[in-house]
Amino acid sequence: MYNEYLEFAKEIALYAGKVMMDYYHNDIDLDYKEDKTVVTVVDKKINSYLIEKVKEKYKNHSVNGEEESCVKNSEYVWVCDPLDGTSMYVNHIPVFVFSLALVYNGEPVVGVIYNANEDKIYTSIKGEGAYCNNIKISVNDKKLGNLGYKTNVEIFNNDIIDEVLLIKELKETSKISSIGSVARSCMAIATGDFSCDIFPGTTHGNCDLAASYLIVTEAGGKVTDLYGNEQRYDKGIKGAVITNGVSHNQILEIVRKYII
Amino acid sequence: MYNEYLEFAKEIALYAGKVMMDYYHNDIDLDYKEDKTVVTVVDKKINSYLIEKVKEKYKNHSVNGEEESCVKNSEYVWVCDPLDGTSMYVNHIPVFVFSLALVYNGEPVVGVIYNANEDKIYTSIKGEGAYCNNIKISVNDKKLGNLGYKTNVEIFNNDIIDEVLLIKELKETSKISSIGSVARSCMAIATGDFSCDIFPGTTHGNCDLAASYLIVTEAGGKVTDLYGNEQRYDKGIKGAVITNGVSHNQILEIVRKYII
Repeated sequence: MYNEYLEFAKEIALYAGKVMMDYYHNDIDLDYKEDKTVVTVVDKKINSYLIEKVKEKYKNHSVNGEEESCVKNSEYVWVCDPLDGTSMYVNHIPVFVFSLALVYNGEPVVGVIYNANEDKIYTSIKGEGAYCNNIKISVNDKKLGNLGYKTNVEIFNNDIIDEVLLIKELKETSKISSIGSVARSCMAIATGDFSCDIFPGTTHGNCDLAASYLIVTEAGGKVTDLYGNEQRYDKGIKGAVITNGVSHNQILEIVRKYII
Repeated sequence: MYNEYLEFAKEIALYAGKVMMDYYHNDIDLDYKEDKTVVTVVDKKINSYLIEKVKEKYKNHSVNGEEESCVKNSEYVWVCDPLDGTSMYVNHIPVFVFSLALVYNGEPVVGVIYNANEDKIYTSIKGEGAYCNNIKISVNDKKLGNLGYKTNVEIFNNDIIDEVLLIKELKETSKISSIGSVARSCMAIATGDFSCDIFPGTTHGNCDLAASYLIVTEAGGKVTDLYGNEQRYDKGIKGAVITNGVSHNQILEIVRKYII
């Protein structure tokens, strides 16, 4: 059953990738949401397509998209960020992905992330490992302080964590970046490139994280909220700490100091 | 004359791009310099090739490369960062470029930056404008505080500026990223995508900045050191503030507060 859902998710991902790349090199009509996040026509087009396809095929399932949702009385929710990394996308920096998960009773069970620019599709089914273009992937085993321990922190206005002071402490023992797409950063963790990501998102934060949660976990990593707890991915989240697993407690200890 | 130098620089750039992309999808032998910057075989291979070619063609010219130099008694210096964005490169994030400038008496007069991953070559000759794949480019006209004003700040250990507190202030009025390649960020300024970059590099910092200085300036932007002064690009620099021009003084005023 989950295999069928994965195939469905991959089809949506490939459609999304095509839309993204078609518009990437052209100018895009820009729009600004109230919170000033850049939203693109691309975002909306993909989100609408997903809703249409879910209605066709799994008419009892809900859809929770960053742009648009469709709520049914169902334990199954398709949780989607049509274009994670919009700010990079509109500025022509190729760090953006499509993210889609099927969440059952709050827990991601199928996940797909598509990096269309590099044609890499990351997939996972609960209990069956994580893959990039069908090759098994796994996290690294670096502890904080090891040479090359790489942490990504998104810098944006939020009222959950003081990420600027957090960075100040982390940069003593870690190489820091802020690449503008948490899902892309999570895939770098899942493949062993990065070691950690700290994500302050709350409202709609589950849309960014649901697929990454599953893929990173199945690649051997660990994902919790900023307090170290498990959380549901079918509604807003309390930020996220995403690591290779072995450094998770080290990171949580530091993060705790900067929670507002 | 400068046209001939530009053609020479472009040839080196295309070679560099080929080397970069050949190795990009493969595992690379890693090496660590004393300052723990990741250096790759790619870096060294490109740097050596440049020195060899300059010796062949312009035997009186000097070469100042991030990895290797060749000093002659000459007013002409080829200033090169073979692979800007090494940390992104080794982590398989496609944000890295080749950068080469011809510097005459301390001033860049020919510049080439090559984003091989997206096959975009940025070029400039002093006084003749800036181009991306032969199409004229220019900066945007956003002032700090405008919706979408985007600033990139590299977060690394340096003793010239407290970039973490700087980010804290800037994020109130600007969207911040740290994409890991100052030269790539400068090209985003030259094309009007980003508005500003603040770069704390000193030793070898000229290698990262020389070509960007010319391309951004010729695209209508402004580049100074962190104190607002012009500087030479054939030796170490005092960091750099790179903007679209119209916001340069606004940014300098903020930067000044965080200089150590």
